[in-house]
Amino acid sequence: MNFVLKGNLCFCENPQRMTTLPNGYLVSRDGVCEGAFARLPDKFSGLPLVDVGDHLVLPGMNDLHVHAPQFAYRGLGMDLELIEWLTTRAFPEESKYRELDYAARAYDLFVDAMKKSATTRLGCFATLHVPATLMLMEKLEAAGLHGYVGKVSMDRNSPDILCETDAAQAARDAESWLVESRKRFSNIKPILTPRFIPSCTDALMGSLATLMRRYDVPLHSHLSENRAEIRWVEQLCPNADGYADAYDRHGMLTPRTIMAHVVYPEPDEIDLLRERGVMVAHCPASNMNIRSGIAPVRKLMKAGVKVGLGTDVAGGQTIDMFRAVTDAVQVSKLYWRLIDQKQAALTLAEGLYLATKGGGAFFGKVGSFERGYAMDAIVLDDSSLPHPQPLTVAERVERALYLSGECKVVGKYVAGRQIV
Amino acid sequence: MNFVLKGNLCFCENPQRMTTLPNGYLVSRDGVCEGAFARLPDKFSGLPLVDVGDHLVLPGMNDLHVHAPQFAYRGLGMDLELIEWLTTRAFPEESKYRELDYAARAYDLFVDAMKKSATTRLGCFATLHVPATLMLMEKLEAAGLHGYVGKVSMDRNSPDILCETDAAQAARDAESWLVESRKRFSNIKPILTPRFIPSCTDALMGSLATLMRRYDVPLHSHLSENRAEIRWVEQLCPNADGYADAYDRHGMLTPRTIMAHVVYPEPDEIDLLRERGVMVAHCPASNMNIRSGIAPVRKLMKAGVKVGLGTDVAGGQTIDMFRAVTDAVQVSKLYWRLIDQKQAALTLAEGLYLATKGGGAFFGKVGSFERGYAMDAIVLDDSSLPHPQPLTVAERVERALYLSGECKVVGKYVAGRQIV
Repeated sequence: MNFVLKGNLCFCENPQRMTTLPNGYLVSRDGVCEGAFARLPDKFSGLPLVDVGDHLVLPGMNDLHVHAPQFAYRGLGMDLELIEWLTTRAFPEESKYRELDYAARAYDLFVDAMKKSATTRLGCFATLHVPATLMLMEKLEAAGLHGYVGKVSMDRNSPDILCETDAAQAARDAESWLVESRKRFSNIKPILTPRFIPSCTDALMGSLATLMRRYDVPLHSHLSENRAEIRWVEQLCPNADGYADAYDRHGMLTPRTIMAHVVYPEPDEIDLLRERGVMVAHCPASNMNIRSGIAPVRKLMKAGVKVGLGTDVAGGQTIDMFRAVTDAVQVSKLYWRLIDQKQAALTLAEGLYLATKGGGAFFGKVGSFERGYAMDAIVLDDSSLPHPQPLTVAERVERALYLSGECKVVGKYVAGRQIV
Repeated sequence: MNFVLKGNLCFCENPQRMTTLPNGYLVSRDGVCEGAFARLPDKFSGLPLVDVGDHLVLPGMNDLHVHAPQFAYRGLGMDLELIEWLTTRAFPEESKYRELDYAARAYDLFVDAMKKSATTRLGCFATLHVPATLMLMEKLEAAGLHGYVGKVSMDRNSPDILCETDAAQAARDAESWLVESRKRFSNIKPILTPRFIPSCTDALMGSLATLMRRYDVPLHSHLSENRAEIRWVEQLCPNADGYADAYDRHGMLTPRTIMAHVVYPEPDEIDLLRERGVMVAHCPASNMNIRSGIAPVRKLMKAGVKVGLGTDVAGGQTIDMFRAVTDAVQVSKLYWRLIDQKQAALTLAEGLYLATKGGGAFFGKVGSFERGYAMDAIVLDDSSLPHPQPLTVAERVERALYLSGECKVVGKYVAGRQIV
């Protein structure tokens, strides 16, 4: 359906500033924005008008890194550090997804919450289980969300309950899942997902790299989250020139690769990420919760590395991407204060940019209201935040982002289709 | 009214652990807890039973540091640093409270939100305006909340629109407000509130110290929030032996003193705070937002300094004390990771302790369900957080704290009186 959405528009064409159009017009044709206008151009006057009144309208959020099976235990076990948390929380819970009954109940909760959230597109880890992963993709597709889901590959250094014991079989499972899911789904697409270097043998990585090229599919993994993990990778890959190179030697760093975290990149790794066009998913809440640290986002941005945001549920406690925006701003202030005063704190506009157009780039022309961008939009009711003084649209957006739990997504469009 | 509250109880007798009593009984007599029990002792079986079913019951939160007039612009201007934020946001907004119409509208919003929140007792800054401050106290008292409110004193280094030009007059205003409010209110009490050293002449400080002793009232101010501010205090008080001493030489550091922030205390200042029995209000969100840094809370606790939590709205963006608990835990992890690995991160139990019994100590026996403590309790509906797996009460509390925006306070008792 083609239509015009009228409301208080706010979006970021670049990281430097938010563009606001009070009572503006957003034109959607064939799922794509024709542009955002202060006055509706005559040529669009024949389109049906959806007037959302005084509500705020923002581009949908792109959550580049979220673990669907961890949603069930978000906000739990947060006193633990990464490896302990993985072994006592993440792995035992993820092993339950071999049972489709459990997976159905848990993924219904995840998809329902994701549908109601500010997120329109996601880069999502599932588990190693093919049937449950296909079920998750089916549910996300039915909910009208877009994005990538990965059957996780992991064949070493994992507990028996959650380990693919045979690299060749693991590769065949990944391929059959890939083929099946490409056939069945239109908007939710497969993404190869080696869990991280410590979980994958060279044999499995080699096979996944072959699949990546053969089927022209993207890849999603973790990079440099935690100092102990980095030392572990050094031990596991003595021939690699650092953690990033351990992926790169398999040809896994490409413009269609998401690497989550990147908290401790070496200078040559930053260069490599830029050269390869890799998208970094910055996950500030997770990096705090499991005590990883603060990723040098300003440094990455200055170096020309592509950056978006992820909630990293359940390292992060919430799928709320507004929280990811303000968390990113807050930790960048601490980075500036505590680590390096040459790295300026992120502004709110920069945070919002990362969550929309920044990370959106992984999905194509996504994350803005400029002409030619996918019509991904959320309608936000902030009337639960009354104020005694007049506020501009930009101020209302700032407040809505900082107090995200207190306002409500009352409308949501993904590629022009209304799903909330 | 005397009664028994039945629900899933959770509280912290000490920082080491949370005590949980699933389907436990909390006995309230004359506004005071008779204790929390797994089974109801026979002697209380005659009391009326309030059964809140599967809801969670926690002690009310004590917000030791919140600026009521800044609630109107919470979550705004967060890209600014302290002094710039004060001059462009805080001071112009606070100046509006000379008009009672504006104050009434703004304070109604603040009090309504505070009433619905998890907070039962607060340490609250108003503005320098006596009529508006009395109005705020009246509204808080009518809402059933308990705590301290301060007419702010500030007679230098402040803009003309928000400055008491005559120290003697400022002292007389503080005294008349003190006398009037002690007469009019039972549960909301006056607390002397010199804004901070830079805003107050020695003459005014001397007068306030005299009032403190003459009327036996507590005092609330800011200490060592920001490095630039600390340098400023050094210049303003060349004879003082540091920022804390600038208060101490006026006799303002006592067991009835709240000092907010304390981000950069010198070792001798930590000793002084302990010796004087001062309560430190740790405000993690604010310290991030206005780029102050991270307060060394573990160090303060180890040294025996009393510590509680504050939201510091609007340096902090929300009056949600659950958020203050998890923010305190999160930034303590970054402190450990980035600054000093000898200072262990706070556990969730420690964070909850600080928000309840830790800060509660400023109000007397407050913040626990042990016998003799004030019957301050909140009833929390977390049914909006469904889960596929069984969860213990402790796990549900952890999740509710981390996802505070997603559950709801459906009941609230202050000193035994139900106000929500």
